[in-house]
Amino acid sequence: MARESWITGATLFTQDAGRRVLRANLRIVDGTIAAITRSKPSRLSPGVKTIDASGLVLLPGFVQAHIHLCQTLFRNQADDLELLDWLSKRIWVMEAAHTPDTLRASALLGIHELLSSGTTCILDMGTVRHTEAILEAVRDSGIRASVGKCLMDHPQTTPEYLREPTDEALREAEALFRGWNGRENDRIRVSYAPRFVISCTERLLTEVARIAREQGALIHTHASENRKEIELVKELVGAENIEYLHRIGMTSPRLVLAHCIWLNETEKRILRDSGTHAVHCPSSNMKLASGFSPVTELRAQGVNVALGADGAPCNNNLNAFQEMRLAALIHKPTHGPRSMRAQEVLDMATLAGAKALGWSDRIGSIEVGKRADLVALDLNQPSNTLPAWGPLDPELIASSVVYSCQPADVRYTWVDGRIVYRGGKVLTIPREKLMSQVRSAQLKIAKKVKIGRL
Amino acid sequence: MARESWITGATLFTQDAGRRVLRANLRIVDGTIAAITRSKPSRLSPGVKTIDASGLVLLPGFVQAHIHLCQTLFRNQADDLELLDWLSKRIWVMEAAHTPDTLRASALLGIHELLSSGTTCILDMGTVRHTEAILEAVRDSGIRASVGKCLMDHPQTTPEYLREPTDEALREAEALFRGWNGRENDRIRVSYAPRFVISCTERLLTEVARIAREQGALIHTHASENRKEIELVKELVGAENIEYLHRIGMTSPRLVLAHCIWLNETEKRILRDSGTHAVHCPSSNMKLASGFSPVTELRAQGVNVALGADGAPCNNNLNAFQEMRLAALIHKPTHGPRSMRAQEVLDMATLAGAKALGWSDRIGSIEVGKRADLVALDLNQPSNTLPAWGPLDPELIASSVVYSCQPADVRYTWVDGRIVYRGGKVLTIPREKLMSQVRSAQLKIAKKVKIGRL
Repeated sequence: MARESWITGATLFTQDAGRRVLRANLRIVDGTIAAITRSKPSRLSPGVKTIDASGLVLLPGFVQAHIHLCQTLFRNQADDLELLDWLSKRIWVMEAAHTPDTLRASALLGIHELLSSGTTCILDMGTVRHTEAILEAVRDSGIRASVGKCLMDHPQTTPEYLREPTDEALREAEALFRGWNGRENDRIRVSYAPRFVISCTERLLTEVARIAREQGALIHTHASENRKEIELVKELVGAENIEYLHRIGMTSPRLVLAHCIWLNETEKRILRDSGTHAVHCPSSNMKLASGFSPVTELRAQGVNVALGADGAPCNNNLNAFQEMRLAALIHKPTHGPRSMRAQEVLDMATLAGAKALGWSDRIGSIEVGKRADLVALDLNQPSNTLPAWGPLDPELIASSVVYSCQPADVRYTWVDGRIVYRGGKVLTIPREKLMSQVRSAQLKIAKKVKIGRL
Repeated sequence: MARESWITGATLFTQDAGRRVLRANLRIVDGTIAAITRSKPSRLSPGVKTIDASGLVLLPGFVQAHIHLCQTLFRNQADDLELLDWLSKRIWVMEAAHTPDTLRASALLGIHELLSSGTTCILDMGTVRHTEAILEAVRDSGIRASVGKCLMDHPQTTPEYLREPTDEALREAEALFRGWNGRENDRIRVSYAPRFVISCTERLLTEVARIAREQGALIHTHASENRKEIELVKELVGAENIEYLHRIGMTSPRLVLAHCIWLNETEKRILRDSGTHAVHCPSSNMKLASGFSPVTELRAQGVNVALGADGAPCNNNLNAFQEMRLAALIHKPTHGPRSMRAQEVLDMATLAGAKALGWSDRIGSIEVGKRADLVALDLNQPSNTLPAWGPLDPELIASSVVYSCQPADVRYTWVDGRIVYRGGKVLTIPREKLMSQVRSAQLKIAKKVKIGRL
């Protein structure tokens, strides 16, 4: 029998093609939005649940297209470093120390934060070993995710303790794809995640391109984040980063590139012409002193740009409100006060994310036929008050969500029509147990890397 | 009889000269920190209250040295504009529509947000009329504040509806000083607040300088925020902004300048040599597309730089966590990952703010003899976990507070030893009543300015 539920009384910030805002009720059947209607259910069958969301604003759940769940345990432990030092002195050392148990704790800690703050879908980069633990955490927590095992095989530029033979790495990535892609009614997908050009041999990259093409899978990597990185790429392969990825056949609408800060004009055109997606990670880009991504130019040229928090130790949050607020703020001094308006940024955090993940048919807006991935916000807080005279005004709501909202304003989060967050609690991740697992995992890793402060 | 209380079990992030972090108990007598001690009260007299703050981190309350409480009602209603348009098309129109009642609602709404997020002391710019309503809100809410009536008298460059005759403006400002300065055991002070050079005649400015010098009062103004502003200043007075303020005798350790973005080298030297304070408002500076303040240079040269959220419609928050995080992040792409470290930013939000307000003897750190203006944070949240291996590590705590903390992590706020925020509630501002006053005030102002969306 079909599983049916209703959400009544909310203001729907639909993100549909007309960007309509309306007061209506949602009927959800088997996790899919079955109706958006002014009428209420006339008679509820037994087993049909109704959430009264009066006074709340309902948005499509936020999509973050670049996340490292494996790093959540390392929050606040890797400040004041540039990318390459940050990786080699801290992050890689700690990532390599993960066991399946510590990785699972790290993933659940990150997912707890994501669901609590309205993010319902992520693209995650996994880590080199034990990525299955992340997929298990995704399965159990109820978040929607595409996860890829992180691929690192370059003999000169990756540390031995986190390097794998090319074929072994590819075999495991393909096994994960076969084992996990499409599971939980397509809530879980598996992507291919070569870390970045520096860490990968050309054979690995071209094999990934070939396999992903055959499988219709997504490729997730970092590109052109840091000036030293692109210098090193040029040394290694004799070309600019994106030009190289293009030359070896990686670019396509199934390629998602985190950061894209240091691009020449040819590279911007390559992104546009190939339909490759960029992911803007403003907190991370500033914290690692990487630079300011040319997001306004990329968007103006027609490149799809999504948002992402990156990992906890380069942010040091995972919440979409921070990334939206920063994406809206940091480009204005250079591009003027009307650049990166609140509505544009909301589009990036919903529709553009869905598009980057190849999931536009299922998520990114509140429309009949899409999955019920939703977030309900209380915009009547003292710190975030919608004016009494404009409760249905799209610009006021967008401004409130992007510039003023905090995770504490989230009242409910749904994925596939299932409530995963309510009343301050992630229903799928018991908090006390999580925090105890986190503490023991942190001690375990600290002991392994033999230092308290790294 | 002396009023005594204890806060036990907390980790004290003292911000004293040694930046010591220790686990100790605080004894507070009549609002002043009387002891920091490992021992617990041996025997509590009746009437002595104890707060068990085990597991929490106690910091000095945050000081925000540039706030416009009168604008809180206008949050999210003035996006996508540069400073001069923002003022003339929206803010001044709405400010002029205030009655004492709407102004009081606006001030209380702002103070509710400030106390909830750990800010215990502000420098507020008032507004042209009814500033006494702000002082009443400060008195009743228990926040520490220096408030000045906003002065605007320039016949060419201020709108008639918000302009006052010079002498009348000065008379009211002086009357406020006499009536309110030092009240509530010196929790309330009155400052002089000429809005900015553009809005003030030279006679007003020189009179303010003279009066403030005689009274030992603080002067609070905006300076060099926007390129059009400084061009207009040059047209009006034939000099660079800060050079002009210096020439007419305004600069001194009793002058606090909000923003200070567009400064030449001479002006930076003037700030340093005169002991004039700058206030960095990163959210506002980006939202109004004003620019990036040269904070790292100013600090390197020895200028005291405090932090401030500015007003709700140019931010659109008032919480110190956002300003600290941004101050730490936005300068790194230009100045490197070790610029604006977490500890430096915490210093700006506490010690530098206290210094700017001339209140260093009473607030800014947790030390015996200072007033008990405090905030208690829970750093064991899933979104903000101190590693199990480093609960007393100053760098980890600073990182957590600056990069990861949210208002929801605040457990208690004290001003003068009195609990003003606890358990999600501002004890001095009943929330239901506040929200009802806010709604009616917003409708009243919307009706007066004759438009819903301005």
